[in-house]
Amino acid sequence: MNRPFPHAEIGAAVAALQARLGERAVTSDAVRDHHARDESSHAARKPDIVVFPEATHEVAEIARIASAFQVPIVPFGAGSGLEGAAIPVFGGISLDTSRLDAILEIRADDMIARVQAGVRRQALNHHLRDTGLFFPVDPGADASIGGMVATGASGTNAVRFGVMRENVLGLTVVLVDGRVIRTGGLARKSSAGYDLTRLFVGSEGTLGIVTEVTLRLHPIPDAVSATAGFMTLYGAVAAVVDIKRAGIAIGRVELLDEATVAVIGRRSSLELDPLPTLFFEFHGDAAEVAVLSNTVSEIIAENGGTNLRWLREDAAARALWDARRLAPSWLKAERLGAVSRPSDVCVPVSSLADLVAETRADVAASPVPAYMFGHVGDGNFHCLFVYHPNDPAEEAEAARLGDRIVARALAAGGTATGEHGVGLGKRRWLEREHGSEAVAVMQALKFTLDPLGLLNPGKVLPEPTTLAWPDQLASSF
Amino acid sequence: MNRPFPHAEIGAAVAALQARLGERAVTSDAVRDHHARDESSHAARKPDIVVFPEATHEVAEIARIASAFQVPIVPFGAGSGLEGAAIPVFGGISLDTSRLDAILEIRADDMIARVQAGVRRQALNHHLRDTGLFFPVDPGADASIGGMVATGASGTNAVRFGVMRENVLGLTVVLVDGRVIRTGGLARKSSAGYDLTRLFVGSEGTLGIVTEVTLRLHPIPDAVSATAGFMTLYGAVAAVVDIKRAGIAIGRVELLDEATVAVIGRRSSLELDPLPTLFFEFHGDAAEVAVLSNTVSEIIAENGGTNLRWLREDAAARALWDARRLAPSWLKAERLGAVSRPSDVCVPVSSLADLVAETRADVAASPVPAYMFGHVGDGNFHCLFVYHPNDPAEEAEAARLGDRIVARALAAGGTATGEHGVGLGKRRWLEREHGSEAVAVMQALKFTLDPLGLLNPGKVLPEPTTLAWPDQLASSF
Repeated sequence: MNRPFPHAEIGAAVAALQARLGERAVTSDAVRDHHARDESSHAARKPDIVVFPEATHEVAEIARIASAFQVPIVPFGAGSGLEGAAIPVFGGISLDTSRLDAILEIRADDMIARVQAGVRRQALNHHLRDTGLFFPVDPGADASIGGMVATGASGTNAVRFGVMRENVLGLTVVLVDGRVIRTGGLARKSSAGYDLTRLFVGSEGTLGIVTEVTLRLHPIPDAVSATAGFMTLYGAVAAVVDIKRAGIAIGRVELLDEATVAVIGRRSSLELDPLPTLFFEFHGDAAEVAVLSNTVSEIIAENGGTNLRWLREDAAARALWDARRLAPSWLKAERLGAVSRPSDVCVPVSSLADLVAETRADVAASPVPAYMFGHVGDGNFHCLFVYHPNDPAEEAEAARLGDRIVARALAAGGTATGEHGVGLGKRRWLEREHGSEAVAVMQALKFTLDPLGLLNPGKVLPEPTTLAWPDQLASSF
Repeated sequence: MNRPFPHAEIGAAVAALQARLGERAVTSDAVRDHHARDESSHAARKPDIVVFPEATHEVAEIARIASAFQVPIVPFGAGSGLEGAAIPVFGGISLDTSRLDAILEIRADDMIARVQAGVRRQALNHHLRDTGLFFPVDPGADASIGGMVATGASGTNAVRFGVMRENVLGLTVVLVDGRVIRTGGLARKSSAGYDLTRLFVGSEGTLGIVTEVTLRLHPIPDAVSATAGFMTLYGAVAAVVDIKRAGIAIGRVELLDEATVAVIGRRSSLELDPLPTLFFEFHGDAAEVAVLSNTVSEIIAENGGTNLRWLREDAAARALWDARRLAPSWLKAERLGAVSRPSDVCVPVSSLADLVAETRADVAASPVPAYMFGHVGDGNFHCLFVYHPNDPAEEAEAARLGDRIVARALAAGGTATGEHGVGLGKRRWLEREHGSEAVAVMQALKFTLDPLGLLNPGKVLPEPTTLAWPDQLASSF
């Protein structure tokens, strides 16, 4: 890391960007430092310059300058990523999308929004407040829509509304040479040609720079929330399987282990038993929820659940989901000066209970505190290790246990990352997850769209990116 | 069309395939003729040989033989396609998937099925009958799962369960050189690397040959069906918009124009008024449907709907959806000796009423009979032209009106094909829909994965496929 990028003419690129963007091309230490990190514990690295484009054509000009001087270009949204995707590990240009903040169009009847990539999800939902519609994907942080496209984000309600992939109808993308393409469209579905939209979703800025996004919106559902404690983790997971197979409309379902429940109990006003616990949201009005609540009660009782509590007041439900959203920061704050590292595996739900139980045994035998919670309806599970960053032994232990979780998930047919993305931290797992032939195809696609490897180098694909690495290409260009 | 493929050594390829596959490599006229066409009116063209592989490794061997002798390879599933994707327009190898018919694994708790590509959707659902689960994507025909992957199929219940793209978790794909890759996995979601699964879904065999598919299953819902006539097409579409925005769980909603309703009325026992009509399916048990039926009744009345009829008997509901499924063949049978050509545009739903009304005006002024119906919840709309194949004037008129529909759909931000695929018929619209830069990216991807252009040549991308056309590449290989 922190190597200079081969053949980059940084000085010339900086001068060209400053000439073009004036005050919106910044080299101050403070601004570069702000763009050197995200919310992860990956090592910071300052970019050489930060640019603040306001329109797609400006992004295209920046890409042409980056290509001309062979300088890396790394998009930066809200900085809320958890795998270092926005860290410019080879320096170069940090492309800050915060001024790409226009909500371009709301088509309420079509339940479609078009936004620039820097729009934050909370701003979009605030803007939608009078329409009865919302954009559901909710990774917790107030991420930018472009960042959520880049990482293939999801969150608590993906079990109901799907992940970014399923909620993006189209994109405007700037290619590395400054060409601008539009993918997808306004139609709800299409079989017209290759699905370029999904190729860019989850590509973390390594194939192109997303500047505009067309999103599906959804009606805000009536919802009733509930909590239930379980004698065993197995019981909690089994109850979720049974509820899903019964076809009941789960809006969200989160699993929290005893350690997490204990911290939430201390920090919030929620009444929770010291047990593995499920937080539920069911969709429907009062009458519909009355219909399904009997079935839910039976299934929970059959699986060793106790104290099913319905939170019929809006304020109580809000407190529940606020607690879920704040839990990671509360857990980190349990240890003064500590940092946290979350695993993000996702497995078929029938494998989840074993995975959680085996991980709990690991954690119990380890000196590093860890907490487990996850989007159990999708099989997506986080184990948050809270360790002291200046204690190499603790850091190594957190890494070792994190690796064991990933290895177990892959053995179960799962993925190293359900929603955080590959970034820096999961690159070395990619071949093990997909096989070397599939990764070779990904590398070929990368080379096709970014032959000099300028777009967010060092991310997603394992190093060396065989075809795309500039050193090896010197002769062919 | 019907040109020979440049550099192809057909005789050597046929000999190699016969040596390898014995009786499962067939050159008889009858079998070749069966693989010369699909359900469309595109011109038939016989392959030179038809092969019937039984396993992925056999498909890989076939691909290696095709590559060695530069012979085209065209997958053939059920032959139920509507845009000619399975027609081997340059001859070569027709790869029939009917013996790739194993259901490999059902994981009921995970609601996942793994199947070989030749499994038919009805066989899969029959196999699932004791699980309470089903695979929902239903294009009407008893298509093969591989064919549905290839075209990005959907159908009446996509409004509820999504299209193929959203119901495929992973694929096994044979690349043109015989390498085998696995994409996706068993996890419900993943952010691990580029989304190769979605790149192959909808690529119609032009990027690789799908041999195995991992599918999402869903619980079979309780459902209640209904019909309603409307004073105007606008009213029918507006009612659907209002029901969707109210967040009501629509399982299916189909729009049928008066002409289609008249034929269904004659051919079935359904009681239908001679009006633009909606066929509905709502999901929920009797109590839940009782809750939503008041809202539905109000919305329908507000939009000029009349005679909302609830079909509470299973037999009545089955008759309704059988009639919808059979309607295209009934419509075609209205004219002895005629063939039919369906448009397949998809637009944002707010544009649908105008599109249908303008098309109806076209049809009213034309001598060629036409019928309109569609998956209105998705904005996907078919106009079926029923013309005599030996009457060039009629055929030209059907083509002219079909073109007008596509042009209108594209002007509204929609797509030339919502679910039938590009095949032969929609290639010339691709640049107009996506722009030349996006199509150039598709061509670059095609060239990356199939540099000699052997995989289903002449499909999807407009001709000449600039980079991938073998003539132009002679010097670089």
